[in-house]
Amino acid sequence: MALEKTVYIGTYIHSESLTKVDVAVDGSIGVGEDGKIAFVLRDTTEVPEGWRNAKVIRTQDHGFFFPGFIDTHIHASQYPNAGVFGNSTLLDWLNTYTFPLESSFNNLDNAARVYNRVVARTLSHGTTTACYFATTHVPATNLLADICQARGQRAFVGRVCMDRMSPDYYRDESVEVAVDASRQCIDHVMKIDPAFDLITPVITPRFAPSCTAEVMAALGKLHQETGVPCQTHISENKAECALVKELFPQSASYTHVYDEAGLLTAKTILAHAVHLGVDERALIKARDAKISHCPASNTALTSGAARVKTMLSEGLTVGLGTDVSGGYTCSILAEAREAIFVSRHVAMTDGDEAKLTVEEALYLATRGGARVVGLEDRIGGFEVGKDWDAQMVTLSSVEDAGVIDQHAGPVEIFGGESWEDKVAKWVYTGDDRNTTAVWVNGRLVHSREGLKL
Amino acid sequence: MALEKTVYIGTYIHSESLTKVDVAVDGSIGVGEDGKIAFVLRDTTEVPEGWRNAKVIRTQDHGFFFPGFIDTHIHASQYPNAGVFGNSTLLDWLNTYTFPLESSFNNLDNAARVYNRVVARTLSHGTTTACYFATTHVPATNLLADICQARGQRAFVGRVCMDRMSPDYYRDESVEVAVDASRQCIDHVMKIDPAFDLITPVITPRFAPSCTAEVMAALGKLHQETGVPCQTHISENKAECALVKELFPQSASYTHVYDEAGLLTAKTILAHAVHLGVDERALIKARDAKISHCPASNTALTSGAARVKTMLSEGLTVGLGTDVSGGYTCSILAEAREAIFVSRHVAMTDGDEAKLTVEEALYLATRGGARVVGLEDRIGGFEVGKDWDAQMVTLSSVEDAGVIDQHAGPVEIFGGESWEDKVAKWVYTGDDRNTTAVWVNGRLVHSREGLKL
Repeated sequence: MALEKTVYIGTYIHSESLTKVDVAVDGSIGVGEDGKIAFVLRDTTEVPEGWRNAKVIRTQDHGFFFPGFIDTHIHASQYPNAGVFGNSTLLDWLNTYTFPLESSFNNLDNAARVYNRVVARTLSHGTTTACYFATTHVPATNLLADICQARGQRAFVGRVCMDRMSPDYYRDESVEVAVDASRQCIDHVMKIDPAFDLITPVITPRFAPSCTAEVMAALGKLHQETGVPCQTHISENKAECALVKELFPQSASYTHVYDEAGLLTAKTILAHAVHLGVDERALIKARDAKISHCPASNTALTSGAARVKTMLSEGLTVGLGTDVSGGYTCSILAEAREAIFVSRHVAMTDGDEAKLTVEEALYLATRGGARVVGLEDRIGGFEVGKDWDAQMVTLSSVEDAGVIDQHAGPVEIFGGESWEDKVAKWVYTGDDRNTTAVWVNGRLVHSREGLKL
Repeated sequence: MALEKTVYIGTYIHSESLTKVDVAVDGSIGVGEDGKIAFVLRDTTEVPEGWRNAKVIRTQDHGFFFPGFIDTHIHASQYPNAGVFGNSTLLDWLNTYTFPLESSFNNLDNAARVYNRVVARTLSHGTTTACYFATTHVPATNLLADICQARGQRAFVGRVCMDRMSPDYYRDESVEVAVDASRQCIDHVMKIDPAFDLITPVITPRFAPSCTAEVMAALGKLHQETGVPCQTHISENKAECALVKELFPQSASYTHVYDEAGLLTAKTILAHAVHLGVDERALIKARDAKISHCPASNTALTSGAARVKTMLSEGLTVGLGTDVSGGYTCSILAEAREAIFVSRHVAMTDGDEAKLTVEEALYLATRGGARVVGLEDRIGGFEVGKDWDAQMVTLSSVEDAGVIDQHAGPVEIFGGESWEDKVAKWVYTGDDRNTTAVWVNGRLVHSREGLKL
């Protein structure tokens, strides 16, 4: 469908750097019919010459435009289990909760229901780009790609490969099956979105314990051959790390296992990275592989506390992942808060320099994520030529103090707050109700019921 | 206003013990005109003889009745700062964020606005009982008591005392001022609620660093003399603990400072208790003093991780506190999640026995809190003779998977979930939207807009 030229007027906020958020209080951003940013003006709310016929959308109340969130690690198929994990840890969690659920995606009706829901719900939380793990099922994985395209969410869609240490009823029968099924999913995306403009296929070996060296080497070959990105898990839990050591006695480390399979490249996303050694982090940096930090999941499953500030200071590229359903939430806003909180726990033992600030968490949620998925030239901030992947955030004033308008969301602006305070209130107390509209590549993909734009 | 006899029909859930939640799927609870529970029936949804003329309220969708939450530690006056704390820790946080805000409560219009808001908002989160720290101002503190009474929230209202280590513009000039002002606030509650039926005054020395031994001894005397409960902070942060050691060199410990002042009794609520020694915990147990665990605050301010399971196993009485605005949230549901998450971080170093379960967190939020405030015979669970302090929780089914009804709240029931799963989904993914109605002592004090009861 054709897009209307639009000028977005009001405050816009985005990350200027890892540590600094740029707040332009009276700005305007023009977005062309191609969904790309045509101009960014800091100090004018006037519609410029040549844009007089454009649609105008203004922020409301204490509102602002903010880049869409990037979820660098989420299991779309596990969404029905969000919040259900008991006191389990990774390896028993997989068998108890996860494999039985994922295996049900051989039923396409079930897949349609869950995937429509998770895409609609994450859009409502402002997630404009998501890196999805699907399941082993080719039709359901392709359906997820179709749903993302139809609903307008930028997505990386991965067919999960695993050929051992999973139940008989839910695993790849052979290396050939894993590679062939992965190819079918790549081919499907090439058909529906040949330029990978919105949807990108992603090669997805689950993780080293459930993949033989053979299947990883074959997928590494596919990765190198096709240039299609890949995603997997690494070093999430100590028992898992010990298992990898046992399964791959020849490899110097968990990271080396992937490297030796040809799966550690600049187009690789590694989720978790909680217990990496110095040598592993150096190898990841040398290969320019990317890290998806999943704090809610790491806390929920008692996996450990990732040293994010250490990784950042060593020059690694880090974004945030909700890791549903190891993580309970599909909201990257909530995940930003969790990232800050995990960093507090790290600081309790490692010292204050381990603390993430609100600004840093928001960077990870946007520009950091953009770099993780290799789209830093297209998304993550507001610059001319980038795609308009954005959310409108609305924070309400406390008017009649005794009347709570639950629809307006939980953030309370009493008056006198600085913009820094407002952003902090959004991060700590906000939720999906404060994300009142969401666009991907200029297309409106979510808005609050009743909102006039 | 007179209450109508009411029968609440449907599923009710409450804590049977610390580790067990009791789910009565088809139950009914009768509440008399006095707001007290007259009958509790597990296996019938029939309205019993003698109640045929009573109003009937039924749960909706995957809904259930649950005891109201008890917030055992919240600074009502700090509510406008919820989410605003930067990278500060306790002692600089007080000077940077807290004292300037609290001192503004010399203005009664400001106090009315903030206090109406925090009471309305906490009620909307299902908090039926709150232990409030107000400020040093008598008129504003009395106004908070009036507002709680008018809005129907059960509350402990404390006028803050402090006579040192706070700014000149915000401290008690003398011991006499502290005691006299405290008495005025006690007298006010005796006037508006002579039996302390809904509102209870609470003697509130801020904490040992900002109180001289003299003011604490005088307040201890007032506590013993009046029988009015008291509340304070203890052992939140290491720098604070070191400061107390320095300020009270004669005392064997932080806990002993309060004990020596006569402030450590069965009617004392101690917030935080993060860094207590074994001897201190033993003394607290011997005095039967109570603990308010404030995990969100302890993480936000990098105070430390309280050893809740240790305290529980040693027989201490523990409830949950939001500690707004050290804590970012005024929701005890969110605090229950934070308690579980902090316990995960403790488990990462201390082992799995440190983990709190969903059931344990809900116990702390209800029955634990009731014991902390000394009202375990009246609130915290559903038994005949107890007050109807309750919330109706509603969890929605996923119907049209692609349509998100944000008003219905974030919990998603896909079908097939056990009650255990539903409760876990509520705790991890729920928010105020899932609390559709709230009663205190039988009176409806909050309901979702448009809800027909």
